[in-house]
Amino acid sequence: MVFDPQDNIFMLAGPVKIHPRVLQAMAVPSIGHRSPEFSKVNEDIKNLTKYLFQTKNDVIVLSGSGTAGMDAAMSNLLKKKDKALAIDNGKFGERMGQLAKLYGDATIIKADWGKCPDIGKIEETLSQGDIKVLAMTHNETSTGFTNPAEEIARLCKKYDTIMVMDGITSVGGIDVPVDKWGIDICITGSQKCIAAPAGLALMSISQKALNAMYDDTSYYLNIKKHVKKLRDDNQTPYTPAVPLHLALREALTMVKEEGLQNRIKRIKNIAEACRAAVEAMGLEILPEKKYASNTVTAIKYPPGIEDKDIRGVLKKQYGIVIAGSQAPHKGEFFRIGHMGNVQIRELIPTIAALEVAFNKAGFKIKNGAGVAAIEDYM
Amino acid sequence: MVFDPQDNIFMLAGPVKIHPRVLQAMAVPSIGHRSPEFSKVNEDIKNLTKYLFQTKNDVIVLSGSGTAGMDAAMSNLLKKKDKALAIDNGKFGERMGQLAKLYGDATIIKADWGKCPDIGKIEETLSQGDIKVLAMTHNETSTGFTNPAEEIARLCKKYDTIMVMDGITSVGGIDVPVDKWGIDICITGSQKCIAAPAGLALMSISQKALNAMYDDTSYYLNIKKHVKKLRDDNQTPYTPAVPLHLALREALTMVKEEGLQNRIKRIKNIAEACRAAVEAMGLEILPEKKYASNTVTAIKYPPGIEDKDIRGVLKKQYGIVIAGSQAPHKGEFFRIGHMGNVQIRELIPTIAALEVAFNKAGFKIKNGAGVAAIEDYM
Repeated sequence: MVFDPQDNIFMLAGPVKIHPRVLQAMAVPSIGHRSPEFSKVNEDIKNLTKYLFQTKNDVIVLSGSGTAGMDAAMSNLLKKKDKALAIDNGKFGERMGQLAKLYGDATIIKADWGKCPDIGKIEETLSQGDIKVLAMTHNETSTGFTNPAEEIARLCKKYDTIMVMDGITSVGGIDVPVDKWGIDICITGSQKCIAAPAGLALMSISQKALNAMYDDTSYYLNIKKHVKKLRDDNQTPYTPAVPLHLALREALTMVKEEGLQNRIKRIKNIAEACRAAVEAMGLEILPEKKYASNTVTAIKYPPGIEDKDIRGVLKKQYGIVIAGSQAPHKGEFFRIGHMGNVQIRELIPTIAALEVAFNKAGFKIKNGAGVAAIEDYM
Repeated sequence: MVFDPQDNIFMLAGPVKIHPRVLQAMAVPSIGHRSPEFSKVNEDIKNLTKYLFQTKNDVIVLSGSGTAGMDAAMSNLLKKKDKALAIDNGKFGERMGQLAKLYGDATIIKADWGKCPDIGKIEETLSQGDIKVLAMTHNETSTGFTNPAEEIARLCKKYDTIMVMDGITSVGGIDVPVDKWGIDICITGSQKCIAAPAGLALMSISQKALNAMYDDTSYYLNIKKHVKKLRDDNQTPYTPAVPLHLALREALTMVKEEGLQNRIKRIKNIAEACRAAVEAMGLEILPEKKYASNTVTAIKYPPGIEDKDIRGVLKKQYGIVIAGSQAPHKGEFFRIGHMGNVQIRELIPTIAALEVAFNKAGFKIKNGAGVAAIEDYM
């Protein structure tokens, strides 16, 4: 069959499938972004974003990807004289490390992909007392690994360090109570757990973080300007990506209608069903089990099995899209995204098609084994 | 009547009305931005953007507003030691000046809103020989003034200065032959003359500009990374705003179908008709006549006429949206945008409604005078 980009099962680790309601909200004629009509959109988004982040802190929406949000946090907080600690155990932790190095005086604590960083070493570094910012990725999309954010947040509080957390594939899919944990800056992306289109970064920012920001280190991504305009006028300092904001409002409304905790529960159930299937198929997940992510499952390829024979077959023969692995671990594992509005009814054919593809590729799985495990779970 | 944001005559100086074809192209299910399907989208956009800019230079699309493009140009080219010259005769020239000051060692040449900057002074400053970057706004959206870009480009070439030009409300509506004039970096925004939704910055970048860029001054807005990814793989370094790219491809396709020079001619005709109407109504445009913009007409309020009695009436009573003036000249004039897909059939009721509103507000205009001038022009 020929792959149809508009009709398929879409199980990437973000972007995720978008609900027709959201597509419809997006595809409306232009409205002036300085109009009262658009201020109302921004106000709704502000309130819904506070609900999403479980916070009373200021929130903003940047017209840019999640990386723009990470860049904004780091560039607003750091000059070369400022010490920063970044945790790197995957592609996006690596990005936090790059940002920390670019803008500040950085220490990087690394762990292998799928492994937990050394918490003792983190505390030791923080205890030196002069680390201004700790930057980390909560859910490492690249490896399906969820870092122990609550524990690290506790350390940041203890040593009075500003915590910047990339929650791009956790917020809205995994519980991230920003105020309860005390996360100073939390960032998420529109195209992940909240199932809006790609192109917006949502952020929560504590007063402590605001107080520690510079005025002269950024322009388009100046956080204080965004906070002030939203507080004062429900506006943005520069032209926002209007259609994406309209879509975001609808997607966040759907999150609230479902209920944040119900949503997190649904995602957890799908993740558990997925992991049960993987085990029943005789495959192994990449991360240490206790850190396995609920929004994305990374599964190792057995020796001799090539990525193209699995993902290529799923896409071309069955119209099912899953994710590969990123450099420098390309081809070593694959990833099933199960965030946003995904349902178990989409996981089932994905697992069935994987069984067929693995069998064809020479890795024997009893037909139906994975699906049976899902049914058992259900 | 109650203003209907989805059904009105929309004559802002950007955003502009969006064609249904473009809305439809945007509102499709997610596609993976690392897929071959999306690389094809990027490749199409690349070729169409080169056509738009009349250039063989590299082009890129940033997921961010036009200001993100201006920020990218300036932050990639300047460190504090680098001298920059910015021309400021309006809101967006002022922004270029702010960027030049933020990132470099800036000289600002100012002129009043609606007045031409002193070309002699520009040449004198450039002739010092150590100005790395000249930054200017081509079409000053805030004042309906088109700066003499070709003349200034000639000076930049003469003194070997990199020219960064904000062409946000000119490219696609006013002739901007990037290669012929020798503009090193030209920036436009998606929501202006090309009539796509807001949220993307399109840029052309000369090899000379690329050679002069730093690697360690930006991250999300790093131009060299964007150029390299697009050259090598038709990809972007970070997640792009996918729906906006799909919309952009369709909007640029429509520009090509119309023909760039035909489009520029159409816009010029509407501008001339608009100026004829303004004169017939006994009103005055803000800028010196020879610099009047073809994409936006700024019209002074006669003494005693308040903005709300004109724009408010147009919007609330007739469902016609025009723009006001920005700080520090709020309330002093109003602006009619006539770029993108606007047609003379939309200008006519706008002028008619203005006649009614001005009469009601106490500034007497013979009913039909402006419309008659348009008909004469037609």
